[in-house]
Parts: sequence; structure tokens; C-alpha cells
Amino acid sequence: MLPRGRPRALGAAALLLLLLLVGFFLFDGRLRGSASLDGELTWDHNRSACVPLRSLQPKCELLHVAIVCAGYNSSRDVITLVKSMLFYRKNPLHLHLVTDDVARNILETLFHTWMVPAVRVSFYNANEFQSQVSWIPNTHYSGLYGLLKLVLPDALPPDLVRVIVLDTDITFASDIAELWAFFAHFSDKQMIGLVENQSNWYLGNLWKNHRPWPALGRGFNTGVILLRLDRLREAGWEQMWKATAQRLLLTLSTTSLADQDIFNAVIKEHPGLVLLLPCIWNVQLSDHTLAEHCYSEASDLKVIHWNSPRKLRVKNKHVQFFRNLYLTFLEYDGNLLRTELFGCPSQPPPRAEQLQQALAQLDEEDACFEFQQQWLTVHRVHLTFLPLDPLPSEAHDVTLVAQLSMDRLQMLEALCSHWPGPMSLALYLTDAETQQFLRFVEASTVLSARSNVAYHVVYREGPLYPVNHLRNVALAQALTSYVFLSDIDFLPAYSLYGYLRASIKQLDLGSQRKVALVVPAFESLHYRLSFPTSKAELLALLDAGSLYTFRYDVWPRGHAPTDYARWREARAPYRVQWAADYEPYVVVPRECPRYDSRFVGFGWNKVAHIVELDAQEYEFLVLPEAFTIHMPHAPSLDISRFRSSPAYRDCLQALKDEFHQDLSRRYGAAALKYLTALQQSRSSA
Amino acid sequence: MLPRGRPRALGAAALLLLLLLVGFFLFDGRLRGSASLDGELTWDHNRSACVPLRSLQPKCELLHVAIVCAGYNSSRDVITLVKSMLFYRKNPLHLHLVTDDVARNILETLFHTWMVPAVRVSFYNANEFQSQVSWIPNTHYSGLYGLLKLVLPDALPPDLVRVIVLDTDITFASDIAELWAFFAHFSDKQMIGLVENQSNWYLGNLWKNHRPWPALGRGFNTGVILLRLDRLREAGWEQMWKATAQRLLLTLSTTSLADQDIFNAVIKEHPGLVLLLPCIWNVQLSDHTLAEHCYSEASDLKVIHWNSPRKLRVKNKHVQFFRNLYLTFLEYDGNLLRTELFGCPSQPPPRAEQLQQALAQLDEEDACFEFQQQWLTVHRVHLTFLPLDPLPSEAHDVTLVAQLSMDRLQMLEALCSHWPGPMSLALYLTDAETQQFLRFVEASTVLSARSNVAYHVVYREGPLYPVNHLRNVALAQALTSYVFLSDIDFLPAYSLYGYLRASIKQLDLGSQRKVALVVPAFESLHYRLSFPTSKAELLALLDAGSLYTFRYDVWPRGHAPTDYARWREARAPYRVQWAADYEPYVVVPRECPRYDSRFVGFGWNKVAHIVELDAQEYEFLVLPEAFTIHMPHAPSLDISRFRSSPAYRDCLQALKDEFHQDLSRRYGAAALKYLTALQQSRSSA
Repeated sequence: MLPRGRPRALGAAALLLLLLLVGFFLFDGRLRGSASLDGELTWDHNRSACVPLRSLQPKCELLHVAIVCAGYNSSRDVITLVKSMLFYRKNPLHLHLVTDDVARNILETLFHTWMVPAVRVSFYNANEFQSQVSWIPNTHYSGLYGLLKLVLPDALPPDLVRVIVLDTDITFASDIAELWAFFAHFSDKQMIGLVENQSNWYLGNLWKNHRPWPALGRGFNTGVILLRLDRLREAGWEQMWKATAQRLLLTLSTTSLADQDIFNAVIKEHPGLVLLLPCIWNVQLSDHTLAEHCYSEASDLKVIHWNSPRKLRVKNKHVQFFRNLYLTFLEYDGNLLRTELFGCPSQPPPRAEQLQQALAQLDEEDACFEFQQQWLTVHRVHLTFLPLDPLPSEAHDVTLVAQLSMDRLQMLEALCSHWPGPMSLALYLTDAETQQFLRFVEASTVLSARSNVAYHVVYREGPLYPVNHLRNVALAQALTSYVFLSDIDFLPAYSLYGYLRASIKQLDLGSQRKVALVVPAFESLHYRLSFPTSKAELLALLDAGSLYTFRYDVWPRGHAPTDYARWREARAPYRVQWAADYEPYVVVPRECPRYDSRFVGFGWNKVAHIVELDAQEYEFLVLPEAFTIHMPHAPSLDISRFRSSPAYRDCLQALKDEFHQDLSRRYGAAALKYLTALQQSRSSA
Repeated sequence: MLPRGRPRALGAAALLLLLLLVGFFLFDGRLRGSASLDGELTWDHNRSACVPLRSLQPKCELLHVAIVCAGYNSSRDVITLVKSMLFYRKNPLHLHLVTDDVARNILETLFHTWMVPAVRVSFYNANEFQSQVSWIPNTHYSGLYGLLKLVLPDALPPDLVRVIVLDTDITFASDIAELWAFFAHFSDKQMIGLVENQSNWYLGNLWKNHRPWPALGRGFNTGVILLRLDRLREAGWEQMWKATAQRLLLTLSTTSLADQDIFNAVIKEHPGLVLLLPCIWNVQLSDHTLAEHCYSEASDLKVIHWNSPRKLRVKNKHVQFFRNLYLTFLEYDGNLLRTELFGCPSQPPPRAEQLQQALAQLDEEDACFEFQQQWLTVHRVHLTFLPLDPLPSEAHDVTLVAQLSMDRLQMLEALCSHWPGPMSLALYLTDAETQQFLRFVEASTVLSARSNVAYHVVYREGPLYPVNHLRNVALAQALTSYVFLSDIDFLPAYSLYGYLRASIKQLDLGSQRKVALVVPAFESLHYRLSFPTSKAELLALLDAGSLYTFRYDVWPRGHAPTDYARWREARAPYRVQWAADYEPYVVVPRECPRYDSRFVGFGWNKVAHIVELDAQEYEFLVLPEAFTIHMPHAPSLDISRFRSSPAYRDCLQALKDEFHQDLSRRYGAAALKYLTALQQSRSSA
């Protein structure tokens, strides 16, 4: 049957070519015509639905996108932009991110752990280019960073020819390749593609004595820009915009709309530089927007620009549509974007191949498959999800380190009232839960007031709680010399933060010394406890049976070596020896060993860490005035799912065995005592 | 400037027309040619990306979709299908759902509360048509309901001409209008549009003596069907398929693939009926699928068909891509699909207009705006989210009614062990949380074993917990004459279920009698309570200070009228009088008054209901052996967000005032005592 099909296919190909050519000329003609602005939005939106343009592009072409991003909040915004872009894209992408140190730390970790196939990310240090724009007085809310778009031809690699530049408050509703296709329509002289500004700002009639920067008609909006970098460099772009800006700043004291004022002023002088893009590629939801004239139906919309300071609360006839689109990506599970772009072969992200191999080697039928898979899972990590403003750290400062999921969020306020010092917390959340978390913090005066609590989001994936990985994420982000390794359901003594700093100073512990200060742990079975304000009060409550030593009834081995009897009387720190299953809460130098992240779910996760400390010859010193109290709570969802399962306990045993094999490998004969202890506990169990 | 633009626009329109005509002929030719199968998948997938087809359709054309859906699990599946369809659609839709009683109850409520603009839903009773297919022996997992697709030309309204028929295990990756556009390519004789079957099943060589039903080559898959109903009716479709089926069943004892076998057998005899659709419109992820030959890149994929019993666990090279697409819609917030189809004017859903007006009349600056908005919110409701198999109810049976959100899920197992009887529970969840809930139930042997617990999902929307709306949803679904109105953090006495049934019988309470049986409430401050197994044990714990009467310290008024002192001694039920702020846990006839859903968030929600019972002259009878105990837990996220706010308390006061005004209106002078009580409590506060 094939021979019969072949000629038909050839005929079809010829006709397709004709079709594309017709489409091409049609578009090209219009584009040239519509570059002259006349105050009306002249792009015919009914045309925009035509896709054939895309076919002009080489399949699998690498598309370049540049974004300037600085600070904590913009780093959150840019992720929603990136999610919307990845959702619709079919091409490999190269993101060029011009960032400050804060955004770089966040985004570098995010992309490294996100591991999206066919996405490359390069970082550029905003500080290096600031001096080129910092002389320009600017009152726009985007600040100095808005202006940095002007220096992109200089900042980006010299061999980079085309780039799409985006503001962080952009949401895609279509495939970015359709936007990229407009590069094919630049005439020989054009080098900047822009959408008209959808407000009357540049008409200069908004109020009496309103004097905007010069622009062609309504001017252009710079939230979405297509740049032919090669031509800009050749045309002397840097001299061009600097000369224009300097001249205009003689009479206009400041830019109101940052880079956009300068782009418009240059274009007013050189209108031939610009290709006008259809308005649907930058639908501007500014206050008093005229965007409604741009589209007539939902399918017209390609790119939404939230360029009002009111953001989602902006007034617009179709704001519900826009808001729903935005929320779709805000809450979208980013893990689902880790999808292979099949059809376009691409270099896998770093680590991805080994990971795939390791996962492929697992045996799905193995009873502990879920444990092994969870251990290998690379979780997306968003460091410092909320703004952080840590005080300069003293030498003896201590950060409280803990991890939690949604069901412990309500512990945060109490914890903040007990611990005024810095905290580094890892939160295990879905993308949607991060938004609930945000609203929770915003609604809490206690939490909003704190600027020394770092929240690191580790995105949920897989059935088991990756407790030790979470601890490691939080631990790695502590900025002080010492860390207090706690759990979220413990409230420390009100005085503990000050007492720990004083003790570290008094004991003259340099951060090099291998010491673990033990904070004795107690528990309350009452959920309305009047919290003891001193050791004396605590002892009284203990005697009255209102407090207990931690897990005294179900797991006394966990804290027995702390020697509660001695602690009652102690006036000075005293040294204790490791024993099997010891898992005290400790204060250690930040450089302490990491937790073993193979322990996922519940059980033995802290025990293994204490073994590691002992193996590395950390000295355990119990502090006589320190204490922390476990608050009662219902069992977590994660724990109740598994604790009844015998298979679960078998897998935990297997993890312990592997851990001990590794110990022997690393510490040799010195690790023998741990193995002996394990075997004794097993034979006594 | 306009005159200059006009001729250009006319020229463009002419060219566009040419373009479309070229496209039309091109497609039409290929489609006719490719209807003859040769064992190869002959549709050229590179062509499918061409959108102009869509432009052939009248803008805003109403598209008709028919789905056969029966039972609890298919009702869940169909919602994911509908979400994917709504996500991409730009046209108004009319869904024709052929359902059993279970699916109808679920889906009618769902769509009624979903209120998606430009979606109409009609229901057809599957029972009415079963007799037409029940004579056909069938071994396929879709059962009898699969076969019902054969009777659609008869079952759907006689004036309905075109319909797309979908299986419930379909996921859209594109706009359904693109599929609908293929109706334009039916020749005069064609009446069924189908995709080739992407397995070798019908080739009959899968195993020795494998004898499939007759088909053209690989045959067709009926997961996606375009039907020209008018032509099928005219051609005598019913006689046609019945004759074919009867004849073949003489030699083939049963259908293996339900309706699909019969469709294929008819088509084998009448190949001219069929238009072959491109394979991307039904990418079949069956076991041993050949679908890979169909697509070469992600953008090719239009419709995914999960037609393996393994569903998401099916083996396929690109299964991760398909799974991520499916999960996208499984977890997608359905509220975001309530978006106006602007550009296509359509009748708003029932109630939507009044609702819009009511919402528009609210004052955003009002301190209680959030309360009013929450009250007006229509939450999507998914009744009986999991299969239910209630025993036939006796006259004295009692259903436990309660509501919860994610943070109380871990109470369910304990509750099940305390209450063996039927339960009706409302769960306040996001779409993504419903999946966590599903996994939680699946992982729990206790919960999986229960078939008399109905879970009703009310989808989250808005900042305040709609406690009374949730109670009403659960209450309305109780199937027994009596209901025990409880809260999720209470565990009833182990004997309570039996004791309540016995008491109702003994007291000779018809369901007409206005009586509220009071179950005295206690509280434990210990989270590891050894639960009392008798009243005597409870009293001992009370005397020992291990248990307390409920809220004895913070809110004694709530339960004081129960008269705990009298209860200690009571051997027989005793009557008590209402007093201000009384909020006992009661057993009442199912027809009792509903809760006042204006009370959202926390506070006074049960109190108002008890006032309503008293106003309607319900008699309060305390049962001498009944008790229930509140288990300690951390405060919920919802409560801690608001309880600290004075504005919150002011709004609650305003709600109380409104409630009392309504009471006076409805009960006249009889309601005076409630107002007096309110004023007294206010002056004493």
C-alpha cells in the first residue's frame, strides 16, 4: 500500500509549502505596515490564532530567554513565570538569569534540584553591571534592577544573537516558540520587537503637568522584548541609549518607568529599530489598562503581564480569567514539568543520567523498593522562600534547625515565642501548600514580625517523609557557627537561646571543637501546659507528674545516657558516654556531619546521626540549665500510614544494616562497638 | 488612519480565505484516501499540528459530548476527563451523560455546584436502555455499561445530529473543537469517525486459537467516536448492529471488548460508514500498545486513552509524559475552570446570576466582607467520593455525621473503631488533597474494610472554614432515620452505636417525633487515654482527674444544661431545658432543621442549631449511658489564623445579630427568649 501513499504525500508537501508561503507573505506585509503607531492598536487579533508561523522555525531550535531577577519576592515570581513557560513549551530553552546574590542562591539551587530536561540555565552577576545604570535617577517600583535590561547586549555572551527578555511578572498562556517566530519577521534594520504600551501614560494627558518621557504615540511596553543582540551591538546600542538618557535627564529629573522610558526615548529618535508585535504577546493588566481592546476571546491571549502594583487584585473585566491562569501555574506541581521533550534529543540535566540508572537498577518487587526510591529522589528545593534579614552573626550564635510539613504549621508561632534567635526550617510541601503557608505567615503578626527565620521549601515527592534530607537542607543554610538540632514539636525553655550562647562563650568552644551540647528533653502529655520558666519549675512539674522525661514509657533508651538523675543535681556541664539508641537533642558546630538521608519515613534517623557524631569523637556535654519539652499532638499522617506495617519495620532493619556496613567501611575497627550494640539490641528484642 | 488600514484588512481577509480553502481541499483529499486500512497507521502525524481546520467551524459552536458513566470509581474518572476537556476548550459544551443512579447522584450534584459557564449537562437513565444490550454476553472489564454506547443514537434526543462519544478513561491534551472539526470531513455516506486500534488484538495472532471478533485489519478503538446520529438513525443502525451481533454470537460465545467488538464487526461489513481519524486523537496506552508509532513528539498528542487495566502503571516508553499530563488534571483545582468563555456569550449556569449580583452588592471595605463572601460561596461538592455499600437500614438506625479537613484525617481510624455503624462525613479538601485522602484510605486496612462510611468532598474555596455548610452536606446524605450530630475530634463510647439504636427503639421514637437525645460530652487532656469501656469507668476517670466534662474550664455554658451531676446518678433518660449557649451533641431525626450556614469559621455554629431545635420545640432528653470524649489536638490552622483577631469576634457578633433577626421573623414572640439571652450574655461579657 505504501507506493500508493507516496505520491499523495509529495503532493501534500507541495501544497503545505504553498500554504506556508502564502501565510508568510501575508504576515510579513502586515507586520511592516503596522510598525507605525497611530494611537490605535492596529494589530488584527483575529489573525493571531494562525500557527503555521511556527513551522518556519527549525524543529527543536534552542530558544534563549533573559530575565533580570533580584531578591526573595521576585525569585518566587519568576518561578511562576518559568512554570507557565515550561508548561506550553516544546523547544529546548536556555535561560539567562541576571541576578543579585540572593536570587542566585535561590534559583541556582532550584534549577539544580528541579532537573528539567532540555532547560539550560546561566547566571550573570547583576552587581557587575549595576554601575552602568546606577547613575540614572529612577522612581519606578522595579528599582535599579529594572534598568539592567538596558545592558543585556553587553552582559550576555557575545555570540548570543537573539534573546527574548521577560519581566518577572509575566505569565504565558501559549508556546513561547510562537513568540520566538517573530524574529523571522525583523527587517534588516529592525533589532527590537515590542508590544505597544496599553495605557495612555505616554500621551502625557493623565493629569495637569504630567510630563512623561518622549515616546511614539502610546509608546511601547518593555515587559516582553525580542532583542537582536548582534545588531544592537553593531549599532552601538550602549552609546545610543546613554546619550539619549543623559540628554533627557537634563530636563526630566528622573525616569518614572525605569528602562521603559529610555527604550521609548531611543525608539522615538530611531523608529526604524522596532518591530511592532501583536498586543496579545503582552496583555498588560496595569491599572487603567486599555488591554481590553486587544483581545476578543480567551484563545487570543498569549502572554499576560501583571504590571500593576496591585497584581492579582487589579480591576479588569476579565480579571477572573487572568487570575485563574496565574493561579494554575502558581499552584502547579513543578515536578510534573520534569518531562522529557521527546522528539527533541537534548543533553540530560547534570546528575539526571546517573539518577536514571540508579533508579533503573532498583527492583520494583523488592519489599523495600519504596525506601530505596525515596532515598534516590531528588527533591526540588526553594531556599529562603520568604525574605530574610539576619543580623550580623556573633561568634557564639546558635541557629535552631528543624523540619516540618503542613500539619505542624501551627507550631511555628509558639516556637517563635520560645526562641528569639535565628532559625533555619525545612518545610516539606506541595506547590499549592506553599501558597497556604504564605497566607499563614502573612496572617500571623508573630511570624510576619520575624526576619531571622529562614524557611526552605523542599517539594513533596514520593510516599515517605525524607526526614534526614530535610534536616540536611535546613542545616546547610544555618548562618551561625553553632546549630541547635531540634524537632518541630519541641518547645525550648524561654531562656535556652541566651543560655546556649552564654555557655558556648563560657566553655570557650571554638567552632573547631568537636563537642555536642546535650539539651535534656522532656514531654508533656497535656496540651495546655503552663510552660516552666526555670529548671526549678520544671523539676516541680516533673515531681507533680505533669511532665515526664521524653518517651520514658515507650523508648527510655533514646535518652537514658543523658542521666536525668544527675541532671537534677548538676550545676556544671557534665560529660556522658554514647550508648546504643541514644538520640539526644544537641547543639553542635555548623560543620558537624550531615544526617544519613537513607533514613526516610520514621525511625532511627536521629540515632544514626548521633552514632556518626560519636564515631567522629564528638564529646557529649549535658548542660545543667538547658531543657526542651515535647508538646503532644495527634500522630502525623505519614507516621500512621506506616507504623502498623511489619514490612516497614523489616525495611528499617535493612537500612540499619546498610548503615552499619558503611560505618565499618569508614571507621574500621572503631565502628565495631556500634555493630555489637545493634546485635545486642536485636537479640534482646 | 482607519481608511489606510481598511483595504489592507480586506486584502488580508481574501488571502485568509484562500489559505483556508487550500487547507480544506488538502485535508479532505487525504482523509478520504486514508480510510482504507492496510495494517499500517497511515495518518501523517506531521500534519496534525495545522490549526486552520478549526476556523472552518462557526465560532462559538455548541459541541456535544456523550459519556456512559456508572458507579463510584467511574464518576471519579470522568471528572478528570472533564477537567482536561474544560482546560483546553474554547467552545460551549453540552454533556450528555448516560448514568446509573449512583453516578447520577454524584455528577448531578457536582455539576450543579461546579457552575462552569457555558457547560450544559443532560442526564439519561442507563437502566432504561440496559435491556437493549443485556442479552449480549461480555467479558470485558467495562461490563454492561461499555455496551451502552451502541444505543446512543436511540438514547440521545432525536434532534441531536452530531456527538463525540468518549470513554471515562480519556485525557485531553488539546482543544476538543479540533476533534469536532473532523465532522466537516465526513463524506455523504460516512457516519462514524474512529481511530485505528493500536494493538494487534484483532489480527487474531496473539496466542494459539485466539479468535477475536472480525475487524478491518487492526480494527478500530471505540474510546473516542464521532457519531453522525441522524445518519445512523436513518440507516437503521439499531437493526444493523443487532443483526450482526446475533449472527456472530452463534459462533463466538461472547464479546471480549464489549461495544468495540460489535462496532468493528458492523464496520467490517460496511466499511463505507467509517471516517478514519488520525491516531493522535486516541493514543491508546493499552498493554502491548503500538501507540509509539503514532507520534514523534509531545506536541503531536491530542487525546490519551488509558485503556489498560493497569492504568497509570502501564509500561510505555513515554509513560512519564502521559502520567504527568494525567496528574495535571487529576490534581487541578476545578474552581479555576469556572472561567467565563468570554467572546462566546452563553446562558449563565442556574443560580450564577443571582450569586453574581449578591456578591457584587457586598462592600469590599466592610470589616466582615470575608464572612459574607464565604457564606455566598458555592462550593463544588463530590458526594460519595468512595464506593459505598450501606446495609438495608433498620427503622432505628443512626448515622454519625461529622466534617473534617486534611489535618484531622488521622482521626478516622480511631473513629471507625469506636463507631461500627454508618457514617456520613464531609471533607473540606482541595483537588490535590483528595488524592492524598484516597491514598490514605487505600493504605489503611481499617478504612478499606468499611463500606458503610460515606465520604463527601466539599472543595476548598475562600479563607474561612464553612463548618455549617459542611455539616449540612453530610447531614443531607445520611440514609438512616436518625443522625448523631458529632464532631470529628470526639470518640464515642464503644457501645454508643448499639445503645442509641436500642434507646430509639425503647423510647418508641418514630422519626416524626421532635426529640433530641443528648450524648454527654467529656474531654481528655491526655493524648494517650485508655478509653473507658463503661459509664462506671468513665466516672472513675472523672474522679481521678484524668477526664473532665467538656470545656469545663473555658466554656462551661456550652454543656451546663446537660446537668452532669444528675447524669452521674441517672438510670433513665431525663428531660432538660434549653439555656443560652447550650451546644450538646445530639441524636435527632434526619429531617431535623439544617445548620445556619452563615456561621463560617469558628464560633456559635452549633449553638445556633440548638436554638433552632428549641424554637421548633424539640425536646432535649439526656441518655443516662451515653457519652462521647473529646480527644486533644493542636489547634487547627483555620482556628489559629483567626482566633486572635478582635475584628473576627466583631464579625461573629454581627452574624449572631443577623441570626436573631431572622429568628424573630420566623418564630415571632416565641423567639424573644433567645434575644433576651443574647443581650444578657453580652452585658455580662
